[in-house]
Amino acid sequence: MNINLNYQNLTDDYLFHAIAKKVADHMAGRPTGADNPAEKIIRLGIGDVTRPLPPVVVEAMEKAVREMGATATFRGYGDYEGYPFLRHAIGGYYAKKSVEVSEDEIFVSDGAKSDLGNILDIFAPENEVLIPDPVYPAYVDANVMAGRRITYLAGHSANAFLPLPNLGTRADIIYLCSPNNPTGAVYGREHLKLWVAHALEKDAVILFDSAYEAFVRDEALPSSIYQIDGAKECAIEFCSFSKTAGFTGTRCGYTVVPHALKRGGVSLNKLWLRRQTTKYNGAPYIVQRGAEAVFSDAGQAQVKENIDYYMENARLMTEALGRLGIWHTGGQNAPYVWLKCPEGCSSWEYFDHLLEKYNIVGTPGAGFGACGEGYLRLSAFGAREDVAEAMRRMAE
Amino acid sequence: MNINLNYQNLTDDYLFHAIAKKVADHMAGRPTGADNPAEKIIRLGIGDVTRPLPPVVVEAMEKAVREMGATATFRGYGDYEGYPFLRHAIGGYYAKKSVEVSEDEIFVSDGAKSDLGNILDIFAPENEVLIPDPVYPAYVDANVMAGRRITYLAGHSANAFLPLPNLGTRADIIYLCSPNNPTGAVYGREHLKLWVAHALEKDAVILFDSAYEAFVRDEALPSSIYQIDGAKECAIEFCSFSKTAGFTGTRCGYTVVPHALKRGGVSLNKLWLRRQTTKYNGAPYIVQRGAEAVFSDAGQAQVKENIDYYMENARLMTEALGRLGIWHTGGQNAPYVWLKCPEGCSSWEYFDHLLEKYNIVGTPGAGFGACGEGYLRLSAFGAREDVAEAMRRMAE
Repeated sequence: MNINLNYQNLTDDYLFHAIAKKVADHMAGRPTGADNPAEKIIRLGIGDVTRPLPPVVVEAMEKAVREMGATATFRGYGDYEGYPFLRHAIGGYYAKKSVEVSEDEIFVSDGAKSDLGNILDIFAPENEVLIPDPVYPAYVDANVMAGRRITYLAGHSANAFLPLPNLGTRADIIYLCSPNNPTGAVYGREHLKLWVAHALEKDAVILFDSAYEAFVRDEALPSSIYQIDGAKECAIEFCSFSKTAGFTGTRCGYTVVPHALKRGGVSLNKLWLRRQTTKYNGAPYIVQRGAEAVFSDAGQAQVKENIDYYMENARLMTEALGRLGIWHTGGQNAPYVWLKCPEGCSSWEYFDHLLEKYNIVGTPGAGFGACGEGYLRLSAFGAREDVAEAMRRMAE
Repeated sequence: MNINLNYQNLTDDYLFHAIAKKVADHMAGRPTGADNPAEKIIRLGIGDVTRPLPPVVVEAMEKAVREMGATATFRGYGDYEGYPFLRHAIGGYYAKKSVEVSEDEIFVSDGAKSDLGNILDIFAPENEVLIPDPVYPAYVDANVMAGRRITYLAGHSANAFLPLPNLGTRADIIYLCSPNNPTGAVYGREHLKLWVAHALEKDAVILFDSAYEAFVRDEALPSSIYQIDGAKECAIEFCSFSKTAGFTGTRCGYTVVPHALKRGGVSLNKLWLRRQTTKYNGAPYIVQRGAEAVFSDAGQAQVKENIDYYMENARLMTEALGRLGIWHTGGQNAPYVWLKCPEGCSSWEYFDHLLEKYNIVGTPGAGFGACGEGYLRLSAFGAREDVAEAMRRMAE
């Protein structure tokens, strides 16, 4: 009996676990004689939302719960790939982006994170993986667990944290995240055209993490990779209700695997369906009804209110950082602000500084990869008064 | 770019997909001039429940939905391994079985099926797997996908479909399912002692699928492998709310990975936690509140009503089959009845016969493995009147 020895190549704890522990230690050890003994901890670290579920979602889920309590309307196992009513609504959402996606190209799940990890099942372990740096750490860990060779592609201020393919870029699986977590950078149409052309030429598959698509407000920017010609032959797109409709604790997402996407003559759509029918049993009916409500007119209006609220937080942050002369990016079409730590200060040192001195929790850039060193991520998902208070403390 | 070529070694479609297709074809092609053109299709095939969620669960989930709709009570990301309130309740349930399980040995998930597949991530792909035959087909498919070598252990009427280890039994990972799906057979204490001793001797890990534990009514039979000394050093147990509380469409289960379970000096509990923090984000808060309610006194009484209802179905079936002189087993401490097809008739032939002649959907035994050939599974999860009507049709 051997365990999966690749797990021994994982570094440390999962980032947000480590942060939670530091915060807990700080709270436990906060000296009562200090200047601000009772100063509230403001959490702008983990990208967790604070606004409640929209009223239409609550109403739809309450109705669904009652249905599940009566024999005549009770539902047992649903379709592995999600109820047709939800896949239909998602198809309609894509149509508004001028993207045609058929219902059997859409797979509903318990969230983008699960799918971004589990999708690797359908690829050979020998495939090489390209991961931008800095980026959401779960991509790296999921591939380390599978023993895949990972190449990193450097993002830095010179390329506006939007690395592009070049002749030397060699990989079978390419992760892209736009709007980006953690930098808030968003690929333009011309950028994505280069990536699609590259993937088609190299027979690679792009795993496009589109969890923040709803935050794209500049209409010139793409909010789906399928807005780029040829993407259906080389990309899988992952979306989420977490950040738009407040589903971080309710769990629902969806993944698009186009029929046109084949490798070695095999349909990846069919492979993913087979993976899901074998190791998954569909998202809860109640949750899927809630997700469906997000796409109603009222739902879209309520979600827009959420997004506007968070983006106003982002504006407050970038404005304050600007006044303080702190270099930063993001926060325009993404809910994350990415700022440069003071000269000579590492990410974790700056994290500790903000926590100990101002009781503000950020996320150290180094947690997102080597190129994140020297940066820190602030999330715009806090309550307005907390964000304002955090900026006031930093301005002092 | 290569796909995972192991997928090409999978046979056919996933069993229940195939059955659904046959039933759809039958319904589409049902001749309107036949004797019973409008005779209702009675589905005793897939093990899906028909009783609605218990009132305590509905009440708890309605409350949770409302909480999620208000800022003050809204919940974002929960613990990857489940909310403490639910893990505490599960610990209490184990205590009633005289099994001590600490809260951080319990991992809440979206269902036993997901965990039974995903748990393989933490084991080396070279590990050899032992799977009883007949058995729940997802075990086999999940291992074929990972390219593992599988050995089958034959169940048949001579060993009461309860195969035991012998000197030649060699494997690193051993799946056991008791009460068994599909045969309804239940391992006794002495049987499980042999398995635990074997696993300890061979350094193997038992994956114990305990999804039907609540159907064990004979107190002499174990309803958790941890009721056997030494099991915590060699077994992971998978449980579900699906069949007891009607959660097939609501999705919740839990997996116990004891701290005492180590291989190569590494804690499997820690490995599983790392897998879940990387590729999973916890079950929905709303669903976890529903699951918690199952363990209240009222919840336990309401679940018992469900189980009694289904077991009365099972009694009606075994009684009718007995009158018809059809060999069968199960249905005593399990919601499945396993019957022998008429001499010379294959499982799928008998499936077709029951579907075409009586409009009854069973599950062909061959779908559960080679040793299932010549048998058919009937599920006791139907509505009472359907079960009675099905038995009436067969008696004709």
